[in-house]
Amino acid sequence: MSLRTPPTLDPTALGVAGAEPGHVYLVGAGPGDPGLLTIRAAALIATADLVAYDRLSPAEVLDLVPAHAERICVGKTVDQPGWHQDDTNDLLVAEALGGKAVVRIKGGDPYVFGRGGEEAIACRNAGVPVEVVSGVSSAVAAPAAAGVPVTHRGIATGVAFITGHEDPTKPDDQIDWEALARFHGTLVFLMGVGNAGRIAGMLIAGGKSPTTPVAVVRWGTTHRQEVLTTDLVSLADDLRRSGMRSPATIVVGDVVALRSVIASGAADLIELAPPLDPHLTAIA
Amino acid sequence: MSLRTPPTLDPTALGVAGAEPGHVYLVGAGPGDPGLLTIRAAALIATADLVAYDRLSPAEVLDLVPAHAERICVGKTVDQPGWHQDDTNDLLVAEALGGKAVVRIKGGDPYVFGRGGEEAIACRNAGVPVEVVSGVSSAVAAPAAAGVPVTHRGIATGVAFITGHEDPTKPDDQIDWEALARFHGTLVFLMGVGNAGRIAGMLIAGGKSPTTPVAVVRWGTTHRQEVLTTDLVSLADDLRRSGMRSPATIVVGDVVALRSVIASGAADLIELAPPLDPHLTAIA
Repeated sequence: MSLRTPPTLDPTALGVAGAEPGHVYLVGAGPGDPGLLTIRAAALIATADLVAYDRLSPAEVLDLVPAHAERICVGKTVDQPGWHQDDTNDLLVAEALGGKAVVRIKGGDPYVFGRGGEEAIACRNAGVPVEVVSGVSSAVAAPAAAGVPVTHRGIATGVAFITGHEDPTKPDDQIDWEALARFHGTLVFLMGVGNAGRIAGMLIAGGKSPTTPVAVVRWGTTHRQEVLTTDLVSLADDLRRSGMRSPATIVVGDVVALRSVIASGAADLIELAPPLDPHLTAIA
Repeated sequence: MSLRTPPTLDPTALGVAGAEPGHVYLVGAGPGDPGLLTIRAAALIATADLVAYDRLSPAEVLDLVPAHAERICVGKTVDQPGWHQDDTNDLLVAEALGGKAVVRIKGGDPYVFGRGGEEAIACRNAGVPVEVVSGVSSAVAAPAAAGVPVTHRGIATGVAFITGHEDPTKPDDQIDWEALARFHGTLVFLMGVGNAGRIAGMLIAGGKSPTTPVAVVRWGTTHRQEVLTTDLVSLADDLRRSGMRSPATIVVGDVVALRSVIASGAADLIELAPPLDPHLTAIA
């Protein structure tokens, strides 16, 4: 085993401080791999009095919470189906006003569909000091872990992240699908597995080639990672046959084809068993 | 001073290993704030035999490089104006084949306009094991540090990153500006300061409102951070009057207006002196 053991890291040597009582920190915890947590995020979590997390927060990250600190799972769960964003906002504000150092852990980045803006505004409106700590977004890291660069010279000079959790066939849909189909780069849909067929249909109707390569990455960057590769016209069928569910990131664009080069040498590339489709592979 | 001192971090406890001889690691170092380095990135840098960096690599990050390791500045500099991407690819491959643990540090994320895909492919083609370590992208973090969430419920349900370093008025420009103007979310241009006037002109010609709010963030997340807020039609003039230069991130969209709420309470909000324009502010 030639792997080297890394030394311990001193956040203070990098100018990184811990949490301050009476403050709220909206902290991106990255896409799932605990190694992709930032040093600032770790320092804040390790000095918090109260940590509010949700079901996408990595377990190893929660191990950093000090023993004395309170842990609260926010967001809709089986136990609290009626929990709403306002409840989270109120909790953060009340606990900070009560003098606690409050850390709100968010999967990925707080501002990439994380509703961090709403929480920051709620804090500001209540006079509570709030800091946003950016994190590694799964919109870039999940494709990367599957061997797909979201931009690549000569192939994609741009990338767009779109929330996929709204039904694109609803009349109040905000998205200009024809413009999106003409976007000159990679399209990454977060939270779009449930609407994948409708998303693909709208893009094809908007003029996107039905044979545009697509990768779906579930639990990207973690040891549970699964990857499905297909094309736009086959996306819905292949997803159904694979049984793949949320949370997953859908990547649409020619960069997906680079996976055959970049991930080809990966020792961890395996076929799903039984192979449902020649396109269907997974990284364990 | 009620700031708490964070404990030291043990990467091994989070399952994070160091670098392996003969491997190449393409490591995102984040947007500039050393606290936004990931634990995996720090562990790799601290166990490298050779670190290749460029002028955007944060100085504090380079302090993590072990004393015995070689440091090489790649990319075009005054000293080596003829340095090209192929030279970097060749260096990474040759040093790994020579048995070194090679870490290539990149500003932001390796796959967000970082040319990481080209370096990964060069390694694969040479049979060199390569790993990409995603980082916090300045495309999200620089706006966040200026009080601007790139997505926000009801305002922007998507965000696009576009490289701004190509002249959009050149005949071989790949971008469909009319489609981009119709994109339903925030537009973030990286490396676009030199072309800001032409970018604004193409977006307005494509149908984007001339009064769309714009923020320009230079050295985002660092102590040198400067922020200019304006609108699309005034962007070029205000940039010129401010004297702001690269490296800067340009954010176009209604989310920029949230800055007045989210950043308003910031103790570090100052006016540039002398104030060139009522829009012109900076976070020191």
